[in-house]
Amino acid sequence: MKVDYRALKERFSSMLVRVGFESSRAEMVARVFAETTFDGVYSHGINRFPRFIGDVKAGTVDPVAVPRLIRRSGAMEQWDGQKGPGILNALYCTERAIALAKKSGIGCVGLRNTNHWMRGGTYGWKAAEQGLMFLGWTNTIPNMPAWPGNAVSQGNNPFIVAIPHEKAPLVLDMAMSQYSYGKLEWYRRNGKQLPEYGGYDLENRLTKDPAAILESGRILPIGLWKGSALSLVLDLSAAILSGGSTSCRIGEGATETDLSQVYMAVDIGRFMEQEKIDHLIEETLQYNKTRNPGSRCPGQRSMEERMANRKSGIEVPDRLWKEIGEL
Amino acid sequence: MKVDYRALKERFSSMLVRVGFESSRAEMVARVFAETTFDGVYSHGINRFPRFIGDVKAGTVDPVAVPRLIRRSGAMEQWDGQKGPGILNALYCTERAIALAKKSGIGCVGLRNTNHWMRGGTYGWKAAEQGLMFLGWTNTIPNMPAWPGNAVSQGNNPFIVAIPHEKAPLVLDMAMSQYSYGKLEWYRRNGKQLPEYGGYDLENRLTKDPAAILESGRILPIGLWKGSALSLVLDLSAAILSGGSTSCRIGEGATETDLSQVYMAVDIGRFMEQEKIDHLIEETLQYNKTRNPGSRCPGQRSMEERMANRKSGIEVPDRLWKEIGEL
Repeated sequence: MKVDYRALKERFSSMLVRVGFESSRAEMVARVFAETTFDGVYSHGINRFPRFIGDVKAGTVDPVAVPRLIRRSGAMEQWDGQKGPGILNALYCTERAIALAKKSGIGCVGLRNTNHWMRGGTYGWKAAEQGLMFLGWTNTIPNMPAWPGNAVSQGNNPFIVAIPHEKAPLVLDMAMSQYSYGKLEWYRRNGKQLPEYGGYDLENRLTKDPAAILESGRILPIGLWKGSALSLVLDLSAAILSGGSTSCRIGEGATETDLSQVYMAVDIGRFMEQEKIDHLIEETLQYNKTRNPGSRCPGQRSMEERMANRKSGIEVPDRLWKEIGEL
Repeated sequence: MKVDYRALKERFSSMLVRVGFESSRAEMVARVFAETTFDGVYSHGINRFPRFIGDVKAGTVDPVAVPRLIRRSGAMEQWDGQKGPGILNALYCTERAIALAKKSGIGCVGLRNTNHWMRGGTYGWKAAEQGLMFLGWTNTIPNMPAWPGNAVSQGNNPFIVAIPHEKAPLVLDMAMSQYSYGKLEWYRRNGKQLPEYGGYDLENRLTKDPAAILESGRILPIGLWKGSALSLVLDLSAAILSGGSTSCRIGEGATETDLSQVYMAVDIGRFMEQEKIDHLIEETLQYNKTRNPGSRCPGQRSMEERMANRKSGIEVPDRLWKEIGEL
């Protein structure tokens, strides 16, 4: 069936209230899930919602918890997420990083003991829409082999960079694996091969077959040893700045929780007017597009999907629509 | 011939004085070139030195220039490198970022109009040895196609992350291309294939043949669209924070100069004692190594080479040794 944005958000919101969210908090979480869905990122939108409700029911996510300040020093803060909803903790810490940056030019927040923030780009957009540059990252449960091995031992730790742009912010949101598990499952479900190599099969051969990669668990780190090393330093720095858990500790649990994250905002408007920033961005995008017509700008596809989907609504399988009304 | 560390450094230093460096500045530049060489990074050490002297003689690098402060606001500073030696400008801005971080917890410096900083890891080590976390990046002349195209239109913009560790800092120093041009040339010169795919040939096939990649210029961005997008935001943010040139502007010149860079230091000691940081790092490295015995820690290979080479000296071709005495 076709569903419009408002109907989807309201369905999410009423489910959230039913599992214990206070209404204004339900509204915030529902909005992020609905926006993510309408941006075309179903894996962290509607498709993930049933699992999120399951995590609330199981007690992994505490719907009433709020972040607690642990330390504040200069332009740095450290918060404990107290097992609250990852989206709400992340929105809060993004605002804290922005507030610190507005005061000192740059701000850095470490957040521990939180849950999955869903689409990391959400927080980049948030900061960029307020005129700030954003750098943020999270660790995850181990889900990727450390190069050049074949046993899962590190997270694919997404890294976010956002730059404000009047037309539409540049938002890079990239996990350290070539494809996310959500993407691999989508390709498998649709009986398609990956467009590029995505991992190794059980015989240790590079492959584009999503089923073979899901079977082996050997997803490919971006840049092989490079993405593996970047994953390592993102994990460690998140745990250090937040005083929280590293991926290897998170892996001791049965479910993915107790995550560590970093939020940095930079008040770049102090050094360059937005109009000049916009000009620099357009000039560089133009330069790339003239030479490589297929090249894209990070965040651009989301904006296109958002526009199209807001107009037309999105197609939701009847079964899924029913499911999120009965969770 | 075998050359020891001191002999190499002195040979570099006397050449630098001859082309116009004041002696204490010559000593600083010589030390970085010699350290880089003894860490096994010949491409940005001894092998690059003749080209560096050429750049000084050609007027691309001004041996007497010092950075000039443009703006200071909160924990942010912006400097003009005034076409000075990239190594000296970078050492200076690293110290500035550290000073800002010691004051505010985190510091951010934009540097424009500078020259190649040689091995970026140098500045990560510098900050980490003083107990600070470091994030830094530089743009470069366009040398990589923007995904999925085949025309060079962006830089491979190295990104550095360093974390202090009592035993040896973790230092990630990674360009956005799978292999550097220096590495490709080394493999070609030695008649070897690359261990992994490094780019495309002129027929648009993925290849491990370094000669075919050098011919096509189609080096592979790490993670394909991901490294291409990360390169873009590193370039733009460096130009914005420094008020300097983007890669596309740098590409208008005949030679690589007028670079833009970012230096961020974080005083993580405020939030966690070094002993606890060391423990977290060792625990995670151990976890990876137990599961994937071949996995490495970023910066580890450099430390091993450094130890071995300091003991034994390094082998320098007679021709090269003579050349760097006569530049």
